[in-house]
Amino acid sequence: MSAIRVPVVEKIFSANDRMAALNHRLLNQEHIYSINLMASPGAGKTSFILETIQHIGNEFKLGVIEGDTAPVTIDSDKVVAAGMPAVQINTGGDCHLDAAMLSDGLSRLPLSTLDLVIIENVGNLICPAAWDLGTHANILIASIPEGDDKPYKYPNIYRGLKVLIINKIDLTPYINFNMEYFRQGVELLNPGLVTFPVSCRTGEGFEAWIDWLRSQVLDQRSN
Amino acid sequence: MSAIRVPVVEKIFSANDRMAALNHRLLNQEHIYSINLMASPGAGKTSFILETIQHIGNEFKLGVIEGDTAPVTIDSDKVVAAGMPAVQINTGGDCHLDAAMLSDGLSRLPLSTLDLVIIENVGNLICPAAWDLGTHANILIASIPEGDDKPYKYPNIYRGLKVLIINKIDLTPYINFNMEYFRQGVELLNPGLVTFPVSCRTGEGFEAWIDWLRSQVLDQRSN
Repeated sequence: MSAIRVPVVEKIFSANDRMAALNHRLLNQEHIYSINLMASPGAGKTSFILETIQHIGNEFKLGVIEGDTAPVTIDSDKVVAAGMPAVQINTGGDCHLDAAMLSDGLSRLPLSTLDLVIIENVGNLICPAAWDLGTHANILIASIPEGDDKPYKYPNIYRGLKVLIINKIDLTPYINFNMEYFRQGVELLNPGLVTFPVSCRTGEGFEAWIDWLRSQVLDQRSN
Repeated sequence: MSAIRVPVVEKIFSANDRMAALNHRLLNQEHIYSINLMASPGAGKTSFILETIQHIGNEFKLGVIEGDTAPVTIDSDKVVAAGMPAVQINTGGDCHLDAAMLSDGLSRLPLSTLDLVIIENVGNLICPAAWDLGTHANILIASIPEGDDKPYKYPNIYRGLKVLIINKIDLTPYINFNMEYFRQGVELLNPGLVTFPVSCRTGEGFEAWIDWLRSQVLDQRSN
């Protein structure tokens, strides 16, 4: 059986990569900067997007694609309430977004009016790491309550990152989290990774993140 | 192609179910009560196991099987340090344990000496829900920092549960978590689900959980 099954798997993967390349080209043509935002369930992906809209929504037009495993619009409703266009993708129980789903999502956004698209991936530290979407940056949100050992236990997702956000730093006084141990693990997997510690609750740390994001969006707009 | 591929998928699933049935029979023969412990990354699975050992380790002999996607022994080392036998299963990047992995794990534990086996599944709210291991109880640990909307967003994992643990209740004062909204979501998916709010940090709530667990282990021992 393996002689039959191996080519099928290869075909699926290369189809995803081809679709990812098409997404990337489309986003570049529209001069849109794009982010694949990944995290464990409850690390604060939607809160992070909403706080980012708060800080940068007057400068740039942001579209959001919300990936969920269930047909609920909890997250996309919040984005629309914040004044930005959002599309919900229900994966039908699947544990990650793929490039074809993103292609569908992009076709439902008013791309010619946008500067930035953030894709909120399904809450999962394992499966999304294996599926390229064709975005400009893979960004992971880690959060203090998850614990300081996560880079050691979920290494694959840390390897492909352009930026790491460390959220919920307002909870640091109440939680035993060894930041040095955490950062050592990250450094082993992704040396020199750009990292922003933030609190979506208090807004702490957002200025540095927004400065970085602004420069990326402006670069992409002038390309 | 679909006429060829569908039977293959069915075969994989039924192989898992057959292996799960064998695991279940073996555990019953040994009069061992067994738990498939699932949660999001960082919800406190290992801390919960360690605190359970603290409370019940003098009464019962407990074996632990630790599922991880990476070849790290962080969690199993902690269990061994607490005086109980532990086996580490590295899934090699896979996002869940399956019944065959559990079968391997069980074969490496001194089953004839044990009363209780806890299997710590890979940290993931999606994939483990689809793979029966053959244990006596699927138990999920939710945690306060994850947010109150998780039953609505990850419904499948809540449907197959025997018990729900709500961990990190010591963080309630610092986090906006609507317990009524959370419990309504759980009730829709799994009416009357046995639920224990606990804090692994302070030990709060463990007496009720241990009482429940003790009765299950005693029942199974006398079968």
